Amino acid sequence: MALKSYLLTPGPTPVPERIALAMAQPILHHRAPAFEKLFAQVREDLKWLFQTKQDVLVFLSSGTGAMEGAVTNFLRRGDKAIVVNGGKFGERWGKILKAYGVEPIELKVEWGRAVEPAQVAKALEQHPDAKAVYVQASESSTGVAHPVKEICALTRDRPNTLTVVDAISALGAFDLPMDAWGMDVLLSGSQKALMLPPGLAFAAASEKAWKMAETSDLPRFYFNWKKEREMQAKNQTNYTPAVSLIVGLAEVLRWLKEDGLEKTFRRHERMSLAARAAVTALGMKLYTDSPSMALTTVIAPEGIDTDKLVKVLRDRYGVTLVGGQDQAKGKIFRIAHLGYFDEFDICTAITAIERALADMGAKVELGKGVGAAMRSFAETA
Amino acid sequence: MALKSYLLTPGPTPVPERIALAMAQPILHHRAPAFEKLFAQVREDLKWLFQTKQDVLVFLSSGTGAMEGAVTNFLRRGDKAIVVNGGKFGERWGKILKAYGVEPIELKVEWGRAVEPAQVAKALEQHPDAKAVYVQASESSTGVAHPVKEICALTRDRPNTLTVVDAISALGAFDLPMDAWGMDVLLSGSQKALMLPPGLAFAAASEKAWKMAETSDLPRFYFNWKKEREMQAKNQTNYTPAVSLIVGLAEVLRWLKEDGLEKTFRRHERMSLAARAAVTALGMKLYTDSPSMALTTVIAPEGIDTDKLVKVLRDRYGVTLVGGQDQAKGKIFRIAHLGYFDEFDICTAITAIERALADMGAKVELGKGVGAAMRSFAETA
Repeated sequence: MALKSYLLTPGPTPVPERIALAMAQPILHHRAPAFEKLFAQVREDLKWLFQTKQDVLVFLSSGTGAMEGAVTNFLRRGDKAIVVNGGKFGERWGKILKAYGVEPIELKVEWGRAVEPAQVAKALEQHPDAKAVYVQASESSTGVAHPVKEICALTRDRPNTLTVVDAISALGAFDLPMDAWGMDVLLSGSQKALMLPPGLAFAAASEKAWKMAETSDLPRFYFNWKKEREMQAKNQTNYTPAVSLIVGLAEVLRWLKEDGLEKTFRRHERMSLAARAAVTALGMKLYTDSPSMALTTVIAPEGIDTDKLVKVLRDRYGVTLVGGQDQAKGKIFRIAHLGYFDEFDICTAITAIERALADMGAKVELGKGVGAAMRSFAETA
Repeated sequence: MALKSYLLTPGPTPVPERIALAMAQPILHHRAPAFEKLFAQVREDLKWLFQTKQDVLVFLSSGTGAMEGAVTNFLRRGDKAIVVNGGKFGERWGKILKAYGVEPIELKVEWGRAVEPAQVAKALEQHPDAKAVYVQASESSTGVAHPVKEICALTRDRPNTLTVVDAISALGAFDLPMDAWGMDVLLSGSQKALMLPPGLAFAAASEKAWKMAETSDLPRFYFNWKKEREMQAKNQTNYTPAVSLIVGLAEVLRWLKEDGLEKTFRRHERMSLAARAAVTALGMKLYTDSPSMALTTVIAPEGIDTDKLVKVLRDRYGVTLVGGQDQAKGKIFRIAHLGYFDEFDICTAITAIERALADMGAKVELGKGVGAAMRSFAETA
């Protein structure tokens, strides 16, 4: 018998059985009324999730496609834009901007740290012509939550500067009220807190952003947001949508609405607190002092290579989580608790981590981490 | 009890139950060895399907994303390219080219007709600097198969002109041997003959095309084929792939390989011949004299509005097929038999069409069409 499989990565995340089976139903044709009716409901529910009055557009792509669109639909060739780069996804903003002839003003942030709003304020002073600030709400490579609300406050009164927020692994995990905070572009994806397979990307834009879009001159076709907005207003898409994923999304959104946003965020917070309590009790240190509720990043004990730890967890215990990338390679591991998790999933993950660390010769008192997690869950129940 | 549902559209096409259930399995992480192993096999099997030695790249997008990439990865701003425009998808090539500052030389072809190779030859003479010929193997809006082999013969010896073939609704339905015919770029998608939900696009390029890619200067990021080629050579993708669809694709390809290409093409041909026999027996005319094996396009009897026919078929009989677009709107209907169909599916569709036409007051001898289809199937068995 093969190992039972446990997935705790920051995307894709586990798909609930009932959602997986909903998507296995006979396929709908995207030009038929049954699809249009479903899509109309999905569009309404996405506004609820994004906490916005704006249309939320649905794309068939990974989140990176939405990141690209958040550049090409708003900027002009030769523009400048500020990029918060404190990890792999922050770095990606710079690469996309360069690919389209936009000059990135990179705010290098130490991995594991959140950007200081003052850093952004200073960059905006030095570059008053910067057309946008690009930032991650949750930087998956480091587990950091950046101060989105504070950054929005800096650009809110600037008519020609947008705040663009990649919430691909954040939306649905913690509170990101688009309109209330004044975000100009907010992005997300299906394979994170929305508990679906990869395949859908989401994007909403403010009035200010749509106004800037009118003068944008960067080339785009598949990710032409203006044309998609016009078409999706008719509950249709310009190009064949991922109908099966949209069927799953309709189910997921119905489910999340039953719980409500507050309960959903609280669920993620409880996972996060328990994971932190567990690894701390095991004597390990957190990688960041600004943790995202989507995942917990942990510095491994001295002498433990996390690439090897990940391998032991996977091959010996069936638990898939990820280690560190680039400068954090071998040094950290990341426990994602994004989407369809309950307290027993977290306890299982901690149990497996304790076992694997002990196998690798680390000093571990078996049960100490899981006990701390359980106490945390009891306290926050 | 709701109507049973029958889907006969040129994409999405029905997903076989066993494939739908394979995709409902617990989700894989795309950076884990289990995915890499699966993807390595998929990449091999796609070469077999494309009949090429080249790498077949897998993208998370609809087919249009691959069409865009087939422009942005090979051309330069200000280039000229010949476009065969005899339908909605041919028209799309021109729109993509313009969006990226490439000048389309449009060969307007009457809807329902295939382009004459002589037309392409003449355009190549008049525009020897044209960098590519863009064409559909099967133009879904008209049901026309264009002469891909003959067009390839025209560009084969021109070192600076590519033939780019959109086989999104053709690959797997009829023979399109990429290397043998000398195609430079060949595209396909998941939701057609590959019997999967929408979400995957495929693309392969010849040595000549990859060489031209070196001097291309159009901007691209998500659809950067060169970077994808490098990454996919390691059985990985740059951005999160549609893991669940790739699991389904692995199953589909295994299945198709069991049958072999010849049998698969023959299966589509039999559906096509039977559908044509049926509608002809009912006194209707085919819309094209160069029919694609992917779908049969039919001119409705005098006085029958096909938009209404489609509605009657759907609402009264549970059969979803599509009518005509633009200039063919109301005039034609399209019976797709692409992917997971057997002879009884075709007979059901014909039966429903007979019933719906009779309901609408057309002169129909019930059973005449389905009898002709059955005879055709018996003859080609």
